Amino acid sequence: MRHVALSTVRRLSLYLQFLEESERAGTTTVSSRALAERGGATPAQVRKDFSFFGSFGMRGVGYPARELAARLRDILGLGHRYRVVLIGAGRIGAALAAYPGFVERGFDLAAVYDVDPAKIGKRLGEGHVVVRDLAQLEADLAAEAAQIAVIGTPAQAAQGIAERLVAAGVHAILNFAPVALTVPPGVTVTNVNMALELEALSFALKHRRA
Amino acid sequence: MRHVALSTVRRLSLYLQFLEESERAGTTTVSSRALAERGGATPAQVRKDFSFFGSFGMRGVGYPARELAARLRDILGLGHRYRVVLIGAGRIGAALAAYPGFVERGFDLAAVYDVDPAKIGKRLGEGHVVVRDLAQLEADLAAEAAQIAVIGTPAQAAQGIAERLVAAGVHAILNFAPVALTVPPGVTVTNVNMALELEALSFALKHRRA
Repeated sequence: MRHVALSTVRRLSLYLQFLEESERAGTTTVSSRALAERGGATPAQVRKDFSFFGSFGMRGVGYPARELAARLRDILGLGHRYRVVLIGAGRIGAALAAYPGFVERGFDLAAVYDVDPAKIGKRLGEGHVVVRDLAQLEADLAAEAAQIAVIGTPAQAAQGIAERLVAAGVHAILNFAPVALTVPPGVTVTNVNMALELEALSFALKHRRA
Repeated sequence: MRHVALSTVRRLSLYLQFLEESERAGTTTVSSRALAERGGATPAQVRKDFSFFGSFGMRGVGYPARELAARLRDILGLGHRYRVVLIGAGRIGAALAAYPGFVERGFDLAAVYDVDPAKIGKRLGEGHVVVRDLAQLEADLAAEAAQIAVIGTPAQAAQGIAERLVAAGVHAILNFAPVALTVPPGVTVTNVNMALELEALSFALKHRRA
């Protein structure tokens, strides 16, 4: 497969969410125009996005919602189960563990780690996962691999933890720490940082007329 | 000022967070190397990022942490107060209203709107803001402008609401709905969507070897 840009992947996710809503509403066929509106794209872009992955639908007839949703779930790697480890047993971790969309997408929180003796041995949030000592990370991952790691530590710890995770075979990292992680090729990092989103807005307002 | 890329703005935010941590730790001078590590950049990139906004620091001496932090807060438009309206009185709104970083960055939640009669007239979460009828949005914004709007509605409502907000003079939108909003030039939209971040990871894992 050719390289697929992150912006394309994000549109595929938006199309899928639209198709799932359409299915729940009893719609069987969707147009490329309706998909385009959801994805912030043109109908031509929708067809191009799908052309990466084979042919779908028919011009003038639209796309069958159920089949297209199933195909997109497959393309997006949904339907798999992923073993996820979380580093940092703070508020972010507790919120994430309680987020229904996490489990719905096959993300199974298998273990949580922290360095704080006051947290180790306790349960995370309302859940059943018990916080483990970060010193056990490598031994645990050698015994049972994880595909995805979530970093919810302070910024200064995050890069070192990312390097330990990558060395232990993790290839996908969801990073909540306010730091741009440096990882080798073949490792994917996505970042969630509300402060950065807010500051991008205030920057834009400040410089609107400048 | 020349056009500044969003990736540059995000690095400025990361530098600022590093400087604020350094100040709290009693550090008075920081190196471009330390800033670069936080921003996922090179020292040369750090100097280039700052060069957009005038000159800072001295080669070989480093940057004075307090002055540079103050300058970055100014560049990022922090230190202002912004009047914020929230559309959609659901879980996202309640979580955001409780997020300390929101108020810390000068974002004052002034009003919350919903279309659900069961929510209108009630307080949002634990806060003091009472939910108003969305039908009042335009009249309220005409009486007292808002600089920023947060959209926390279902996807199918979001584009129409964005258009109403822009028509009412809002120039900055934080969008939590799973839809790519189309807005005119001069309006800034940032998106927060955990589902998309998770699906970008599962996509990357699925296609690693493909």
